[in-house]
Amino acid sequence: MPEPELTIASLLRDPSLATACAQWLRGGRYQLEAIVPDREPVAALEARGEGFDALLLEQGVLDDATALALRERGLLLPAVVVGEVSGRVELHEAEVHLPPDQLEQLPYSLDAAVARFLRRGTPSLDTTGAAAIHHGEEQAAAEGSQERWKLTNRLRGRLGYLGIYYKRDPARFLRLLPQDDCDKLLASLTRTYRDLLLSYFRDPASANQALESFVNTAFFSDLPITRVVEIHMNLIDRFGKQLQLEGHKNDFLQDYRLALLDVMAHLCEMYRRSIPPDAPLSAAQAAAQHQGAGPPLHADL
Amino acid sequence: MPEPELTIASLLRDPSLATACAQWLRGGRYQLEAIVPDREPVAALEARGEGFDALLLEQGVLDDATALALRERGLLLPAVVVGEVSGRVELHEAEVHLPPDQLEQLPYSLDAAVARFLRRGTPSLDTTGAAAIHHGEEQAAAEGSQERWKLTNRLRGRLGYLGIYYKRDPARFLRLLPQDDCDKLLASLTRTYRDLLLSYFRDPASANQALESFVNTAFFSDLPITRVVEIHMNLIDRFGKQLQLEGHKNDFLQDYRLALLDVMAHLCEMYRRSIPPDAPLSAAQAAAQHQGAGPPLHADL
Repeated sequence: MPEPELTIASLLRDPSLATACAQWLRGGRYQLEAIVPDREPVAALEARGEGFDALLLEQGVLDDATALALRERGLLLPAVVVGEVSGRVELHEAEVHLPPDQLEQLPYSLDAAVARFLRRGTPSLDTTGAAAIHHGEEQAAAEGSQERWKLTNRLRGRLGYLGIYYKRDPARFLRLLPQDDCDKLLASLTRTYRDLLLSYFRDPASANQALESFVNTAFFSDLPITRVVEIHMNLIDRFGKQLQLEGHKNDFLQDYRLALLDVMAHLCEMYRRSIPPDAPLSAAQAAAQHQGAGPPLHADL
Repeated sequence: MPEPELTIASLLRDPSLATACAQWLRGGRYQLEAIVPDREPVAALEARGEGFDALLLEQGVLDDATALALRERGLLLPAVVVGEVSGRVELHEAEVHLPPDQLEQLPYSLDAAVARFLRRGTPSLDTTGAAAIHHGEEQAAAEGSQERWKLTNRLRGRLGYLGIYYKRDPARFLRLLPQDDCDKLLASLTRTYRDLLLSYFRDPASANQALESFVNTAFFSDLPITRVVEIHMNLIDRFGKQLQLEGHKNDFLQDYRLALLDVMAHLCEMYRRSIPPDAPLSAAQAAAQHQGAGPPLHADL
């Protein structure tokens, strides 16, 4: 069976970013098609109809009016936003954020974006529908719903997703990568985790985007949990030495265990929800599907 | 398909404990058969040959000579030891410990004992074999290996275990239990977690048994991760108020986040290893099977 292929519409303004993205998506599983952001992305996406499976977006290339038009017309796709984590939502709540210095994780982020879109698709559809109706565009909303529904079925068919459950590509598991790629991925994950720590207490929305990015890649690369702990310890160690050199106290670094707890809880919940249901499970499955994501870890822990 | 049934040899001296165990194993999935501990458990287990699938053991009923005889003859079964967590190994390294005030978790512990036995069966077999040969009993060791191998195959066949992967019984998932059973299970898990906290810094071996017991039940009952965090927070809150009432400082309670991290890391790793491999995964599967359990969380975290 040939590997399923995803066609990605890319809206990137920076040519060096476009080159880097193409490099990290080489290998045949993804086909990138550029859309020039300044030339009517709404029309371009509409014209291609079912031709695109996901969207690769440079942060800031969509103005508010264009994002709203895409939402109202139901032209939403699984999306990865490349840019510094800022907490801002560019297009929809299921998008995945990845900073430009962490593009090694782009294939994992795309898989995560598709999985999140499939899981969250239905509720966010309802929201969009409600918003559109509020603007008096019932027909556009209804068409949007149909379009989305077809896309969801197409993605499920193409990628073999089992309902809301995540499916991983073993070829991208950390332990099966060539040593060089393995080192690069770990360095990239370390940068993501550093972003998480730096924003954890001062900017929760940005921290959340970094956390999701880290957890997605950890899950899709089947990262051993001890590696997560190692990445945390190495960074805290590095911060501690830096603070000491600068003559500052560093005992507050213990508070960052909360960040590790947060990462672990999210990763654990992602694994928990990725186990396919056993045979006699219709009731359990229904319950799981109606169970929302848990609240974030409490800071009073 | 009728539910598979496990025949459990029970070696319990205390009659009230025997009654309580029987109560928590009611429902047809398990059949308990009592062996009077003082009357030659080795001969009784040997006579029944393949009749038993697991062992329910009261802490301290096996003297060292009997335990050694069982190991040397390869009469090892998946085992749950009922007694206070003490860090002591009664029979073999895959046994699961459960204190008598937490018997609500007994069915989960039995499933965990079987899963651990299947996962650890082969390495512990080698160890036992080596020890027996050291004692000059090559033949007994070889017979033991064969016996164990048959048992492993039988358990796999009966319970549908996929190699080293855990399989759960959805009928025992927390969200499908009647409210009363659900409350009892959560109270029982809270007692296990309390045992973990009380021994975490002063008795690592006991803490480890409590931790494994908690993680097993959390996994086999599909406990949401947020519930784990809740149990931790409620207990720390209770400890904090108690210390305050007694006029002690309580800021050191933050250190117990390490215990929660430890639980989360183990649970996450258990989930990670429970995902069945995807189709084209022979290489990945082999790698996973040869990958040992990770080291415990470092106290310098």
